[in-house]
Amino acid sequence: MPNAQIIAIGSEMLTPEKVDTNSLFLTRQLNNLGISVSGKRVVSDSREEIAEAIEQCLARAELVIVSGGLGPTEDDLTRDGAALALGRKLHFDGQVLESIAARFRTFNRPMTERNRRQAFILEGARVLPNPHGTAPGQAIETGDKLLFLLPGPPRELEPMVLDQCIAIWTEFFPPRVLRTFTFRIARMPESEVDERAAPIYTRFSNPETTILASAGDITLQFRASAETSEKADSLLAAVANPIRQELGERIYSEDGSSLEETLTRHLAARGQTLAVAESCTGGMLAARMAGVPGVSQVFLGGYIVYTNAMKETLAGIDPLLLNQHSPVSAEVARALATATRDRTGSTYAISVTGYAGPAGGTEQDPVGTVYVGIATPDRLFAERLSFPGDRDRVRRFSTQWALDILRAEVLRHPAMAQNFAASC
Amino acid sequence: MPNAQIIAIGSEMLTPEKVDTNSLFLTRQLNNLGISVSGKRVVSDSREEIAEAIEQCLARAELVIVSGGLGPTEDDLTRDGAALALGRKLHFDGQVLESIAARFRTFNRPMTERNRRQAFILEGARVLPNPHGTAPGQAIETGDKLLFLLPGPPRELEPMVLDQCIAIWTEFFPPRVLRTFTFRIARMPESEVDERAAPIYTRFSNPETTILASAGDITLQFRASAETSEKADSLLAAVANPIRQELGERIYSEDGSSLEETLTRHLAARGQTLAVAESCTGGMLAARMAGVPGVSQVFLGGYIVYTNAMKETLAGIDPLLLNQHSPVSAEVARALATATRDRTGSTYAISVTGYAGPAGGTEQDPVGTVYVGIATPDRLFAERLSFPGDRDRVRRFSTQWALDILRAEVLRHPAMAQNFAASC
Repeated sequence: MPNAQIIAIGSEMLTPEKVDTNSLFLTRQLNNLGISVSGKRVVSDSREEIAEAIEQCLARAELVIVSGGLGPTEDDLTRDGAALALGRKLHFDGQVLESIAARFRTFNRPMTERNRRQAFILEGARVLPNPHGTAPGQAIETGDKLLFLLPGPPRELEPMVLDQCIAIWTEFFPPRVLRTFTFRIARMPESEVDERAAPIYTRFSNPETTILASAGDITLQFRASAETSEKADSLLAAVANPIRQELGERIYSEDGSSLEETLTRHLAARGQTLAVAESCTGGMLAARMAGVPGVSQVFLGGYIVYTNAMKETLAGIDPLLLNQHSPVSAEVARALATATRDRTGSTYAISVTGYAGPAGGTEQDPVGTVYVGIATPDRLFAERLSFPGDRDRVRRFSTQWALDILRAEVLRHPAMAQNFAASC
Repeated sequence: MPNAQIIAIGSEMLTPEKVDTNSLFLTRQLNNLGISVSGKRVVSDSREEIAEAIEQCLARAELVIVSGGLGPTEDDLTRDGAALALGRKLHFDGQVLESIAARFRTFNRPMTERNRRQAFILEGARVLPNPHGTAPGQAIETGDKLLFLLPGPPRELEPMVLDQCIAIWTEFFPPRVLRTFTFRIARMPESEVDERAAPIYTRFSNPETTILASAGDITLQFRASAETSEKADSLLAAVANPIRQELGERIYSEDGSSLEETLTRHLAARGQTLAVAESCTGGMLAARMAGVPGVSQVFLGGYIVYTNAMKETLAGIDPLLLNQHSPVSAEVARALATATRDRTGSTYAISVTGYAGPAGGTEQDPVGTVYVGIATPDRLFAERLSFPGDRDRVRRFSTQWALDILRAEVLRHPAMAQNFAASC
């Protein structure tokens, strides 16, 4: 598989405010042609550093793409850097200057002396006309490799890539198909997912496998390349099938859907509904559900019962129960879930109560302890959980566990699961 | 001025979807110490490429920071890459393994064999403990330069930098004093803030001024550098004072506090409380309030009334009113606010009802229309708002407006405001 390196030129991308985004567009276009990106970098406006980056990248990859630094000002040094790296001369191209001048005439603006800089072309380079700006791109063959110099502004770079570069790349690197496949897993540490999946995926170098982890959420991504999409898909199946067997229903999504989207789909397929009562998560669980477009057929709403008084006033929890038990307890979690289910008339209710920190907690139930209560048509139970991290992280873990515990519960009913499978 | 290079490790950052953002945080911290960033790059999970990048960057800069690739899995190769680059051995550190094991015990989870990988430390490295994860950081002196290996997840990297790295960098590269000052403003477009502030801040090159914008929230940041902190502070005052006069109470925070933290402080100072009723925002407003540590003295909770039926059942809205008026209307917003205030006994209540999209909306009230209702001890009103953007953005805008409208309302009472000023 051919690979590319991308260099963005510009000191402004070395500040705390600005990232290079051209590389994302370029990566997408390259991947579509079966060309992978093996590295990228941001280089300041310095002739020597640009030259060094081009040399180092050409040593690593068949295709090197430089964006930016082709403007008319003193600190536009990409042309000079490329000349230094390749040991080639720049020559002045009258035709390029004339097309820049024509552009200025169109907009009735005077061309400045500085714009002459933009008419210097590397020996042997192919000029890539720029209908959206003054700086032409340049394509250079060097040995068996390709170097592209492209303008920095996305509105100039993107059409130049689509209309001119892709044709050259395709000719140079006859494309292969690149296909990806994804498993998402909740409530399992990254190390456990890897321990179970690695014995399988390490047997394959194509597809490549990547593991991404966020709070209680693991994504396993597989990328296969082949001559045809059928072949790429069968390479993907060779690694995905045994991993699916290993992880089974712990995989909540195979199409990139989020956990809340998956749960919404399972509930909608069964004509079932959900309501929530949140203490420590304070609305975060509801907000995740409400973030799914069209969720109103399954998500009714619920209570935010941040204080003890609200647990009584809004959800109608017996004051005696709240006297006998801590508000962070299995008893209160169960009472909240069942009261919410009764009062809203939902099929399922979830409650969350816990110590998110930084203050609070007891000896038995320190900060990070969370009880999730679940009420279903035939069960009422609570799970005690403990999470690491700060307030925000404990709350995000809590919503992740709550949604995935309910997902498992919804899938427990085989008749319904078949019904779902038939209708989805 | 000393300079640094930043390397992000991870093939996932070489896909079309993901950029490295740790470098922005790192750049800000380094700039604060007067260290500039002269280049950055993203490298795939390959031992040889990591080693090569470290060598090349050490040749260019006094400080090289690597983030990512310290996890427990097969594709976490930063330790091996650094060892190869420096020609040093990795040794197993029993004490590090014990602290990883202790972390697993705290959460009652079994430590896997793979986590042993994370206990390998470079010869001569200083271990940087990681209280937020399993991978310790490593700091290595090599010649007259510094190499840092830091964990990839921002929640682990950021506290490690703030609590441990900055002290080491400051010792190694004695800084000029760099001081910052911040104004935050809600409900005002970036262009308006800039139109009013630019005539002032453009007169100064020190401090430097930066404007950051997110949904309905503008941050004006000033950075001054000088030989002493007194001198830096007086440079800051020269630009901040006239901008404060220009923007007045539209500035909600001068210490970086978020809008919900500011509102919590104003309410706490007055011994007042808040409850909410959310339809389209579906818990997002409550979740923002509940995210403030110690908020339970002012934030009671409330209702998520995602469906019409819940507006009746939970908040007790008159079915006749819901027949006469759209659920997205000033009438329903006012009814929700006043019912929530009555039922919870809070000082203030906020309601939010709107069309977040992508479906829904009417001719008069298209997608993006949101009504915010406010009930106070002496007023009941609703504001009609319209926001651009997708579902998530409309919802985030809505919470921002709701919180800032209430902030203005709370500040309307001069007697209370004096009381607040006296007690804060």
